[in-house]
Amino acid sequence: MITMLSDFGDRDIYVGVMKGVISQINPELRVIDLTHQIPPQNIAAARFCLMNAYPYFPDGTVHLAVVDPGVGGRRRAIAVEFANGFLVGPDNGIFSGLLSQNPANAVVELTNPDYWRTPQPSRTFHGRDIFAPVAAHLASGVPLTELGNLIHRAALVQLDIVECILTETGIVGSIQYIDHFGNLVTNIPGSYVQGKTWCVKAGGLTMRGCETYGDVEVGDAIAHTGDSLRAIALVESHGWIEIAINSGNAQSQLHLQLGDTIEVAFES
Amino acid sequence: MITMLSDFGDRDIYVGVMKGVISQINPELRVIDLTHQIPPQNIAAARFCLMNAYPYFPDGTVHLAVVDPGVGGRRRAIAVEFANGFLVGPDNGIFSGLLSQNPANAVVELTNPDYWRTPQPSRTFHGRDIFAPVAAHLASGVPLTELGNLIHRAALVQLDIVECILTETGIVGSIQYIDHFGNLVTNIPGSYVQGKTWCVKAGGLTMRGCETYGDVEVGDAIAHTGDSLRAIALVESHGWIEIAINSGNAQSQLHLQLGDTIEVAFES
Amino acid sequence: MITMLSDFGDRDIYVGVMKGVISQINPELRVIDLTHQIPPQNIAAARFCLMNAYPYFPDGTVHLAVVDPGVGGRRRAIAVEFANGFLVGPDNGIFSGLLSQNPANAVVELTNPDYWRTPQPSRTFHGRDIFAPVAAHLASGVPLTELGNLIHRAALVQLDIVECILTETGIVGSIQYIDHFGNLVTNIPGSYVQGKTWCVKAGGLTMRGCETYGDVEVGDAIAHTGDSLRAIALVESHGWIEIAINSGNAQSQLHLQLGDTIEVAFES
Repeated sequence: MITMLSDFGDRDIYVGVMKGVISQINPELRVIDLTHQIPPQNIAAARFCLMNAYPYFPDGTVHLAVVDPGVGGRRRAIAVEFANGFLVGPDNGIFSGLLSQNPANAVVELTNPDYWRTPQPSRTFHGRDIFAPVAAHLASGVPLTELGNLIHRAALVQLDIVECILTETGIVGSIQYIDHFGNLVTNIPGSYVQGKTWCVKAGGLTMRGCETYGDVEVGDAIAHTGDSLRAIALVESHGWIEIAINSGNAQSQLHLQLGDTIEVAFES
Repeated sequence: MITMLSDFGDRDIYVGVMKGVISQINPELRVIDLTHQIPPQNIAAARFCLMNAYPYFPDGTVHLAVVDPGVGGRRRAIAVEFANGFLVGPDNGIFSGLLSQNPANAVVELTNPDYWRTPQPSRTFHGRDIFAPVAAHLASGVPLTELGNLIHRAALVQLDIVECILTETGIVGSIQYIDHFGNLVTNIPGSYVQGKTWCVKAGGLTMRGCETYGDVEVGDAIAHTGDSLRAIALVESHGWIEIAINSGNAQSQLHLQLGDTIEVAFES
Repeated sequence: MITMLSDFGDRDIYVGVMKGVISQINPELRVIDLTHQIPPQNIAAARFCLMNAYPYFPDGTVHLAVVDPGVGGRRRAIAVEFANGFLVGPDNGIFSGLLSQNPANAVVELTNPDYWRTPQPSRTFHGRDIFAPVAAHLASGVPLTELGNLIHRAALVQLDIVECILTETGIVGSIQYIDHFGNLVTNIPGSYVQGKTWCVKAGGLTMRGCETYGDVEVGDAIAHTGDSLRAIALVESHGWIEIAINSGNAQSQLHLQLGDTIEVAFES
C-alpha cells in the first residue's frame, strides 16, 4: 500500500503519470490519495496533513509525499523507516511533524539509480523519476538500505513551526491550517483543555469551548457581541483545537487567516 | 466494493483517512469515489447524486455517504439493505431518493461499537470512526443485523423535495441540480415528454425539446428573442429533463439558478 | 489496466458511474485517473495530456478518453490498437498527438452493440453507455476486431495544431498548455536547444534558458528590465520548452496566455 500527497493539483497528468510509473514496477500495488491540493510549495501544510493522516493506515504503508520547491537543486531525496511504515520524498521538513511524534528508525539518501525510473532523471519531476519508483520498490519489499547511503536522522531538515505557549491564564497559539469547510485549526493540542471549562478569543470574538458543531444553536455563542454567528471552539477529529461555525464557514465569516493569533482562556 | 460520496472536498485528508481506515479492516476492498464535491451540508444534492448513481454498480455494493451537518448530535447513524446492495451514513434523508425507487429491505441503527474504529468516536468525524469501518465490515461479509438494532423503515428521516406538477397545458417543475458543464437538471422525468413535441420555458426564454446537444446549430433555437444562444432542452442521461447549451454553459449564459421554476409545454 | 481522461470535472457522478459500469463488467480491472479537469470541450488540451502520459503506463493499458462535444451526433466512436496498448473514445482528434508519435496498428468503429452497456445508448453520455464498457471488454481480453468494423487509420479526424517554425536566428512557437503551477508549456521540443546557449523572448521579456527552477535566484534573470521576477525558460519533464518562475506562478505574473507567441534565440 502506498499513499500519495502532493501540491500537483488535479488539472494535469502529473499524479496519473506517477501512478503509471508505480504500476509499471508492480501492478498489484494499491495507491490511496491523501490530497494533491496542498497549496503550491507549502511544505508546512503538507507536514500538517502527513502528521495527522499516518495513524489511519496499515503498518508497512509507504507514504509518498512530493511538495518539492527545491527539485533539481541541492536538497536531498530521502526514504525513512519508522514504526508504522516508510516515508519517501524530499528532505525539506515535510516529514518533520510526523517524525517528532514517531522518530525515524533509519534514513537513507536516495543515491542508488537502480531503483529510479531512469539513471538520467528529469531536473524538474523527481516525483515521476525518483520518488514514485522508489516508493513502488519499497512497497514491493526492497530493503531500505538498498536505496542509498544511510544518513543520521539528526541531519534531516527541520521545519520551524510556531509552537503554542502556555501563559499564566491560558494558552496563546495560532491558526495552522484551514480546511475545506473553513474550519480554523489551531496549533493547540486538545489535551490541554480536557475536563476544563474554556473558551477561545480571536479577532475580537469570544467562542465557547464545545464538543461538536451542533452544541450551539443559531444566535447563541457570542453573547457579548450580540451577533447571531454560531461560532464555537472545539477539539477537532485529529486532536487540535479549532474554531468552527455550525453549518457555516468560519474563515469567511470571521475574517481570520492562517497564522492569526488565537488565545485559550480557562474559567475556574 | 464500496462507493464513497461526501462534501469533504479534495483539499484535506478526510477522504484519504477514511480509505486508510477501510484498508486497515480489509486491504482487499475496492473503493470508487462518486464525488466529494457535494456543496457543504447540501443533503439534497447528495440525495440526487446517490439516486442517479446506484444502478451502475454491481449487486452487493456498499454505498457510503457522508454529508452530515448533524454529526455528533442526536441524528441516528444507519445502515440499510436494499435490492441492489447496502447504504451506510447518517439518517438525514440522504438516502430518501434512492429508497423511494427501491424500498429498504432492512434498516439498523449503528449501535454496536464492535464495528466502529473505536468505542469512543470523535464527536465531529463519524465518517472516519463509525461509517467507514461499518462499510468495510459490511463489504467484508458481516451481516447487517450484527451492526445494531433493527428499526422500521418508515421511521427514517425524509427529505422534503419539491415535486413537479402536471397542469392542463404542460408541467411545472424546477431546477434541482446544476452540473460541472452548467447543464440545468430539472425535477421533471423525461418519460413525460417521450414521443411528444415539446418545449421548455424558463427565464423568459423558450427552448425546443431536442435529443442531444448537437441538434441545434449556432443561431438557431431561440427565434423569438433573435438571440444566437443555442440553448436547448433535452432528456439527460439519468432520465431528467435538462436545459443545456451546445458547447456552452447554460447556468452562466441563461442566468438561471437552483430552484428556479421551469415549465414544459406541449405542441399538439 | 485502464486510464481515464475527461472534461467531466469532479463535482458530479459521471466519472464514478463510468467506473461502476467498468466494475460491473470486470471487478478485477484497475483504473487510474489521468485527469478529469480538461477544460470543457477542449480537445487540444486532452490531446496534449494523452500524448505526454501514455509512455508511463504498462504495455497493453487501455486509455479511455472522453472529451466529446459531438456526442450523439455524427462523429464516430472508435477503438485503436497501437504499439503500447489501446485507445477508446470519440474520433475527434483527441488521439492525434499520440498517434503522430506512435502510429495506429488497427482502428475499428464501435458499431457492435454487444459490447455496449445497452443497445439503446443515451444520446448524451456515450462515456457511460459505449466507451467505458468497450474499454472494460478490451482490457478483459476481447479482440479489437470484435468491437466493430475496421476502418483505415488515414480516415481518422486530425486536429490542426500550430507547429513551431525554425527561423534563421531561432525558433518561433506558442504556448500550448498551462499547468496547475502556472508554468507555460510551449510547442517547442526541448531537443532543439540541447547543448546550446539559448534564451526565450515573450511578452517583452527575455528569459535565460536554464535546467531547473532553482537555477535562478530572487532578483536574477531579467537583468534588462531591472525586474525582480525570477522567470526562466527550461525543458520541462515531458520534453517541451516551458517558461516558469521559481516558486511562483508564471501565468499570473507574466500576463501570458494560451496561444501567445514565444521565441527561442540562440547565442553563438
